Amino acid sequence: MDAAALRRLLAGVRDGSIAVADAAAALADLPYQDLDYARLDHHRPLRTGWPEVVLGAGKTTAQVSGIVAAMAGRGHPVLVTRATPEMYAAAAAAVPAAEYHELARCIVVPGGEPEGRHDNGLLIVTGGTADLPVAEEAALTAELMGCRPERLNDVGVAGLHRLLAQRERLLQARVIVVVAGMEAALASVVSGLVSAPVIAVPTSVGYGASFGGLAALLGMLNSCAPGVGVVNIDNGFGAGYLAAQICRMPR
Amino acid sequence: MDAAALRRLLAGVRDGSIAVADAAAALADLPYQDLDYARLDHHRPLRTGWPEVVLGAGKTTAQVSGIVAAMAGRGHPVLVTRATPEMYAAAAAAVPAAEYHELARCIVVPGGEPEGRHDNGLLIVTGGTADLPVAEEAALTAELMGCRPERLNDVGVAGLHRLLAQRERLLQARVIVVVAGMEAALASVVSGLVSAPVIAVPTSVGYGASFGGLAALLGMLNSCAPGVGVVNIDNGFGAGYLAAQICRMPR
Amino acid sequence: MDAAALRRLLAGVRDGSIAVADAAAALADLPYQDLDYARLDHHRPLRTGWPEVVLGAGKTTAQVSGIVAAMAGRGHPVLVTRATPEMYAAAAAAVPAAEYHELARCIVVPGGEPEGRHDNGLLIVTGGTADLPVAEEAALTAELMGCRPERLNDVGVAGLHRLLAQRERLLQARVIVVVAGMEAALASVVSGLVSAPVIAVPTSVGYGASFGGLAALLGMLNSCAPGVGVVNIDNGFGAGYLAAQICRMPR
Amino acid sequence: MDAAALRRLLAGVRDGSIAVADAAAALADLPYQDLDYARLDHHRPLRTGWPEVVLGAGKTTAQVSGIVAAMAGRGHPVLVTRATPEMYAAAAAAVPAAEYHELARCIVVPGGEPEGRHDNGLLIVTGGTADLPVAEEAALTAELMGCRPERLNDVGVAGLHRLLAQRERLLQARVIVVVAGMEAALASVVSGLVSAPVIAVPTSVGYGASFGGLAALLGMLNSCAPGVGVVNIDNGFGAGYLAAQICRMPR
Amino acid sequence: MDAAALRRLLAGVRDGSIAVADAAAALADLPYQDLDYARLDHHRPLRTGWPEVVLGAGKTTAQVSGIVAAMAGRGHPVLVTRATPEMYAAAAAAVPAAEYHELARCIVVPGGEPEGRHDNGLLIVTGGTADLPVAEEAALTAELMGCRPERLNDVGVAGLHRLLAQRERLLQARVIVVVAGMEAALASVVSGLVSAPVIAVPTSVGYGASFGGLAALLGMLNSCAPGVGVVNIDNGFGAGYLAAQICRMPR
Amino acid sequence: MDAAALRRLLAGVRDGSIAVADAAAALADLPYQDLDYARLDHHRPLRTGWPEVVLGAGKTTAQVSGIVAAMAGRGHPVLVTRATPEMYAAAAAAVPAAEYHELARCIVVPGGEPEGRHDNGLLIVTGGTADLPVAEEAALTAELMGCRPERLNDVGVAGLHRLLAQRERLLQARVIVVVAGMEAALASVVSGLVSAPVIAVPTSVGYGASFGGLAALLGMLNSCAPGVGVVNIDNGFGAGYLAAQICRMPR
Amino acid sequence: MDAAALRRLLAGVRDGSIAVADAAAALADLPYQDLDYARLDHHRPLRTGWPEVVLGAGKTTAQVSGIVAAMAGRGHPVLVTRATPEMYAAAAAAVPAAEYHELARCIVVPGGEPEGRHDNGLLIVTGGTADLPVAEEAALTAELMGCRPERLNDVGVAGLHRLLAQRERLLQARVIVVVAGMEAALASVVSGLVSAPVIAVPTSVGYGASFGGLAALLGMLNSCAPGVGVVNIDNGFGAGYLAAQICRMPR
Amino acid sequence: MDAAALRRLLAGVRDGSIAVADAAAALADLPYQDLDYARLDHHRPLRTGWPEVVLGAGKTTAQVSGIVAAMAGRGHPVLVTRATPEMYAAAAAAVPAAEYHELARCIVVPGGEPEGRHDNGLLIVTGGTADLPVAEEAALTAELMGCRPERLNDVGVAGLHRLLAQRERLLQARVIVVVAGMEAALASVVSGLVSAPVIAVPTSVGYGASFGGLAALLGMLNSCAPGVGVVNIDNGFGAGYLAAQICRMPR
Repeated sequence: MDAAALRRLLAGVRDGSIAVADAAAALADLPYQDLDYARLDHHRPLRTGWPEVVLGAGKTTAQVSGIVAAMAGRGHPVLVTRATPEMYAAAAAAVPAAEYHELARCIVVPGGEPEGRHDNGLLIVTGGTADLPVAEEAALTAELMGCRPERLNDVGVAGLHRLLAQRERLLQARVIVVVAGMEAALASVVSGLVSAPVIAVPTSVGYGASFGGLAALLGMLNSCAPGVGVVNIDNGFGAGYLAAQICRMPR
Repeated sequence: MDAAALRRLLAGVRDGSIAVADAAAALADLPYQDLDYARLDHHRPLRTGWPEVVLGAGKTTAQVSGIVAAMAGRGHPVLVTRATPEMYAAAAAAVPAAEYHELARCIVVPGGEPEGRHDNGLLIVTGGTADLPVAEEAALTAELMGCRPERLNDVGVAGLHRLLAQRERLLQARVIVVVAGMEAALASVVSGLVSAPVIAVPTSVGYGASFGGLAALLGMLNSCAPGVGVVNIDNGFGAGYLAAQICRMPR
Repeated sequence: MDAAALRRLLAGVRDGSIAVADAAAALADLPYQDLDYARLDHHRPLRTGWPEVVLGAGKTTAQVSGIVAAMAGRGHPVLVTRATPEMYAAAAAAVPAAEYHELARCIVVPGGEPEGRHDNGLLIVTGGTADLPVAEEAALTAELMGCRPERLNDVGVAGLHRLLAQRERLLQARVIVVVAGMEAALASVVSGLVSAPVIAVPTSVGYGASFGGLAALLGMLNSCAPGVGVVNIDNGFGAGYLAAQICRMPR
Repeated sequence: MDAAALRRLLAGVRDGSIAVADAAAALADLPYQDLDYARLDHHRPLRTGWPEVVLGAGKTTAQVSGIVAAMAGRGHPVLVTRATPEMYAAAAAAVPAAEYHELARCIVVPGGEPEGRHDNGLLIVTGGTADLPVAEEAALTAELMGCRPERLNDVGVAGLHRLLAQRERLLQARVIVVVAGMEAALASVVSGLVSAPVIAVPTSVGYGASFGGLAALLGMLNSCAPGVGVVNIDNGFGAGYLAAQICRMPR
Repeated sequence: MDAAALRRLLAGVRDGSIAVADAAAALADLPYQDLDYARLDHHRPLRTGWPEVVLGAGKTTAQVSGIVAAMAGRGHPVLVTRATPEMYAAAAAAVPAAEYHELARCIVVPGGEPEGRHDNGLLIVTGGTADLPVAEEAALTAELMGCRPERLNDVGVAGLHRLLAQRERLLQARVIVVVAGMEAALASVVSGLVSAPVIAVPTSVGYGASFGGLAALLGMLNSCAPGVGVVNIDNGFGAGYLAAQICRMPR
Repeated sequence: MDAAALRRLLAGVRDGSIAVADAAAALADLPYQDLDYARLDHHRPLRTGWPEVVLGAGKTTAQVSGIVAAMAGRGHPVLVTRATPEMYAAAAAAVPAAEYHELARCIVVPGGEPEGRHDNGLLIVTGGTADLPVAEEAALTAELMGCRPERLNDVGVAGLHRLLAQRERLLQARVIVVVAGMEAALASVVSGLVSAPVIAVPTSVGYGASFGGLAALLGMLNSCAPGVGVVNIDNGFGAGYLAAQICRMPR
Repeated sequence: MDAAALRRLLAGVRDGSIAVADAAAALADLPYQDLDYARLDHHRPLRTGWPEVVLGAGKTTAQVSGIVAAMAGRGHPVLVTRATPEMYAAAAAAVPAAEYHELARCIVVPGGEPEGRHDNGLLIVTGGTADLPVAEEAALTAELMGCRPERLNDVGVAGLHRLLAQRERLLQARVIVVVAGMEAALASVVSGLVSAPVIAVPTSVGYGASFGGLAALLGMLNSCAPGVGVVNIDNGFGAGYLAAQICRMPR
Repeated sequence: MDAAALRRLLAGVRDGSIAVADAAAALADLPYQDLDYARLDHHRPLRTGWPEVVLGAGKTTAQVSGIVAAMAGRGHPVLVTRATPEMYAAAAAAVPAAEYHELARCIVVPGGEPEGRHDNGLLIVTGGTADLPVAEEAALTAELMGCRPERLNDVGVAGLHRLLAQRERLLQARVIVVVAGMEAALASVVSGLVSAPVIAVPTSVGYGASFGGLAALLGMLNSCAPGVGVVNIDNGFGAGYLAAQICRMPR
């Protein structure tokens, strides 16, 4: 239940179109709903503006489909990240509107159109082709939160002219998400070129002394150009969420 | 030379009030100025909106005072972080307007009043008293960039009611900087309460298995609540810079 | 052989109901029983109050079933943690009373009813759904040791109201086990709210810079709220054991 | 203000011996007191049973003495850990009752006699002489919380007979704190001998591959004997606090 | 070719029983034999007393069988550690005398009886059942080098009496190999009881903060009892080799 | 398009044999070609002398074959490292000239003969048989760049005479690539013997405390003999590339 | 009290030359002597053959001198490692026979001549000049235990001929201690040349990615040549002790 | 003694101008000279082309001056890195020709003019002012080996135009040394622009999660642009040595 739905419900109570008993039932599990194995935070849309997002990894297929059904039943848009095809099959059996985004490994149950669209301003940049799954997770998250992210792929610093040729697009962006593995120098280079805030996502792309993305993480944290906020390794969701928060900030 | 100064210079050329030779001299080291040991990026204000900030640590006192003099000579506001009192003494001898902020360990040469003031919206929150130097570095940076940050100190999660009592201030903030050491749980808790973006600064406050701030850093990167961008350990400057970028974002 | 069984045996010898030769045979492997590949510590119940618990991981299926048979043959309750279904099948063939707890990945051969029951006071709290297997291992261990743990699931700090709504239950607990992954802030928050000791179990739930539970471990060790004792990552057994020791402490 | 003081205050209001205005003033900063650089949690005694303890490290001398004065002013016992002699001098100037415990590096302002004394049951064991400062910090903390800890020093496993000779004392303890550096095997050995819970404190005693106490920390977390809860490296305070919580547990 | 074989060859040349041409051919690849993918060190028996041992891991099946055939063809005993059953099948096809030791994961081609037998003095001790494969690798290696190791299994410190009951065997040993995972306290405890040198093998037995045997490794390196030499994690071969060197030391 | 091809094209335009429109089309994607998921850097041969090399790991089979087709279509030689047989099958369907080097796990589409051949001077040395795949990746890379590397396999320092017997070959080399795992002492030993630069490749060969090649990496970085440049763990490609750059350096 | 002294005492009792009361007093603190801050293990000479060695680091000057006095008072030889000049001054005031070895940073109170001398067979080898303090600590320890170690200094592998020129001395040694920092390749090279056991001591000599001796430690643990037992970083004492144990092994 | 000196000596013997006895004396310590605490490798110039370089750190002042005197006495140029002013004072007392380079922390005793000068081709690039000491150590080393390195300072990627403005100089270089701390992205960016080999030196410049240069080291090892060889953190000497080797390579 988001802020608009709550206002409609209360208006209905006031004008008599909704019975008090019905309203009470609708509000009963507002704070959270206890599924025994999970305690769904239906209050989050009111508090933070967006519903809870579900991390698929570590949950059983039955738990994921149960959570998807419970959230979709409240009319919330649903996003499950790191979801397997098996999780999707179970979720789709319960909620036919569920979609699967293979590259991003996400289950989505679209909600209604978010209030207001933010047509430009969010640019998602990748260092290389192997960073795409993480970037798509970020893009999908931002889209569900009402943004329309643009992409700029495979502009890693090994071929700097690929990036510099797109400098105009970088300068026009209001928020930039940089997704890169290996040494992740792209974050520093982009941040040195623009005045927009940069959200940096280190990826586990690489091998050997990349140590599962540690090299990229440390590189982004130590950026010699300021204006870089870093999220967890491979955390496309977190970057998309933070970027959308900034894009939609009240003025 | 910032954007306004450049426009004034060019207007003066056009209307004849500034001789071409004088303008050429003023623009000669626009891209950068070579001090041999440093290459000052005077172009940065035009590119990113703010002048280069100087990290004092690792430089000699003579280098710091030379850089301060060169930057102040171009009319830029100057910020030197991690500056020792000795560095300040040398800088003040060269640039009497230089000030020293002891708690934040910063040298500041104030510039003119930034264009536009952002009176509210940036809140800097600390977990404990020992986090203050880092928080002050963040505040000072944001102030130089035209923000007026508010503070909320010593609200670590060991006494949650201290934080919850200030929930209104959290909800009104447009951007929140959370500065915390030890396990740094404050970032997750704050981010779970608000819809504003959170910039998280892990500090090296703690001992033993804090490993110089590593525990706080990992904690913030793994926040179970989304909407958290992390900067380097003890990097108050980076957090203040990123927060100011977001606060001043074009709309 | 626990303390009560030993007393019964010796009483039988004194009153003549048990032949000395039979008693001697029963006591022959009291200190330990040598299975060649294992040296079972049948003396442990007398010394620490509870029999040895078996870590299934790293043992062959034949070794596990051999150990289960040997321990059950002495009348001890048996607990094998991290047991595969294959291990269970072999153990059940040897000891039909063996049960398998799938979520907790444990084989259990129930002993007699423990002396005294501790009906309340132990509360096991999880940060999220994916922490359940570890929490169940803790609960199962505590139950075998005579406790009746209650559960409070999925109350991670991303939605703090879910936890605060249960504050009464937290305050009534005598010992609290907190099971959480990612940044594991829940341990600090819970410990700041109560006067009961907190046993914290970091889990490997998370990804990237969670580094297999290291982030959660460091977070719990650096808790800004005192009163937290930490066990190994994913060590539900250890937490349940320690909690039961405290609950059953002599007065 | 602890629970007894609060009851006395309210009883005074009821029987008229305390004016309402005076009581209101006394209660005004009950939740916390804002010193600008610190937000003292005067509510903590009511909530957790003991007042906030202050970590001296990372605070200025002026901050420490200010906090000590504010806490002592409310009649709380005060404990400052990791305090320098300079901090003590400043604190003693403000609060003459302050004492300095050199070995434990602690400032103490004794409160009234805690309700109820727990004369036996807490045993603090050290592996070697160099572990004494940490052990004393634990003992001092527990004493302030109403326990009377006993000591058993320098019984590391290199000379096992020193420990075994004291087995009776181990068996009689209700809670055991084990303080050890290097490989910290003492925690496992003690825990294997007793049924009491063991609180383990790794110390930074050692060199080379002890990595500042990391070896001891990992050793204690991986104890092959269950019943061990671990606190941060060198965290004597945390161990003493947790042990006292357990010793004083309601029944 | 070991020292005895070389002497026989040369004696044969001197007394005419071996033709010079034949002797030259036999000595042709004495220093090493080049298999293109490997350069077999047939000189090692003369230099160090024992032939090269082959690490199976990382080699192809064809490479392993080729090496086994080449070494056996020179009459050397052969030991391949970390060998898969597939490697064994290929090796046995080429060298029918090859044997497979499943628990130790080793291929062995027995050589002749080593000069001199060392019937006692080497004791291999394990902390738990899961340490057996590593211990067997050590035992097998020592046996090939002419020792007759004894075993003492599952005497981890969680049940100290199991170890103390065998103190006589410990005291009689001339060299002791201790194989243990988790916190590996057994090495310190054993070394504190005896005057014999202890070779310590940390194993990867454990989970979570054992970090693949790192905890055991650090524990053994930081032993508070001196007289402990440590080998790589799970390196049974290295321990058996070093122990045999010591047992067979010239006097 | 390499430098020679560009000159031919422009000469054709000048002499009229190539229409301007055709030349323009040929040059259209000179800087890079946008495949949506990848942005191929066709400019790299002009800039660095060699075309972009593709890391297969982390890309889908379709992406790899698409990239191979696009690069081969421009007449570039193509190298895909860490390629699976599935990737090769797809690539060969699109570009029949593609070859698969199984040991090196590489797809190669040979270009024309490189300008100039460098017949001697590059020597690739391995510590053991298990280092061969990495060494072959290095050799293949160098061959594509016009070198003719020689090999010296299995000369690890455990049998130093194997290396010393080849000292002449070491002394004649102009550049030496050393590929070694475990402790990787070979790099130091080789570098101490020669005046040629050494490119060192740590490999993940080893187990336990090799930590995936970390031990070898640190060993090579800390070489007590100077003249060693290190690349990433298992990065045969990087070593071959750097070695070929040095061999082909302009004079 | 060592074995010979004990026999003399008992013989004196038997023949009446020593009064029973005097003998009883002499034996009173045989197992250990409780100094409150330390529990001296006077039983160790009987058990392991040598008295306890004291680690000076982490102890106060008063504690060190107290321990030295107590141990010397029993006629034991005393060794304090990592002792400061201040510790020595205090110890010498209490025990005039105390000596200070500056390079090795050790206090020594010589005991009587050990039973039996081992004139040759122990060789201590260093990689470089900066390894000398650790090597001297090893030598001093071994000397106190009755060995006469020889030295071979500064033979690191950067100049291999320095080592090979001394091959005869290596081959004649019965036990070799290798002390080396940086990449510590010397251990592998030496062990590949000899059949004697090698005790390897990594030192913290180096900088940067030596990480305080970690690189050397990992290098020695991963030695490609078997026959290497490793002790803690900079642990000269441990190496000297283990080497002396082996040299003096019963036959 | 370098190759030219050796030829002159032998020519003198042949033509009778040098007595055989004198020549023998001059050659006596050719292989190495034993100073007891050091074994000087006077053979190195013949073997590798340059004399041994001395690491000052970890040596006593007396050892450093002794080594300088011994090497200078053979006519070798001498370089001591990481030398303190105290070491210089002692060395200059023994060898008046010794010079001290303060910024680079090096003692130098210049030799004769190296054979052949390499006037261009080596470019040393730094990311920032604080990297200068390491860069100067590299430059000094290369100069002693006959190169004339050029410098390009403070061109870190935060202001990319500073670097791009110097692209011509980068393209003309034959070998480039890149010295950078923090995230060290400069190495990747430079390597992507040129065809010359890049020697990368990570520095410890930075704080927090730079972990003493680890971030820079990992970044350089994971460079997405090939052609980068990495040396130890802060190892200017190693980089200068390797670069000079490449510059002076035989053709």
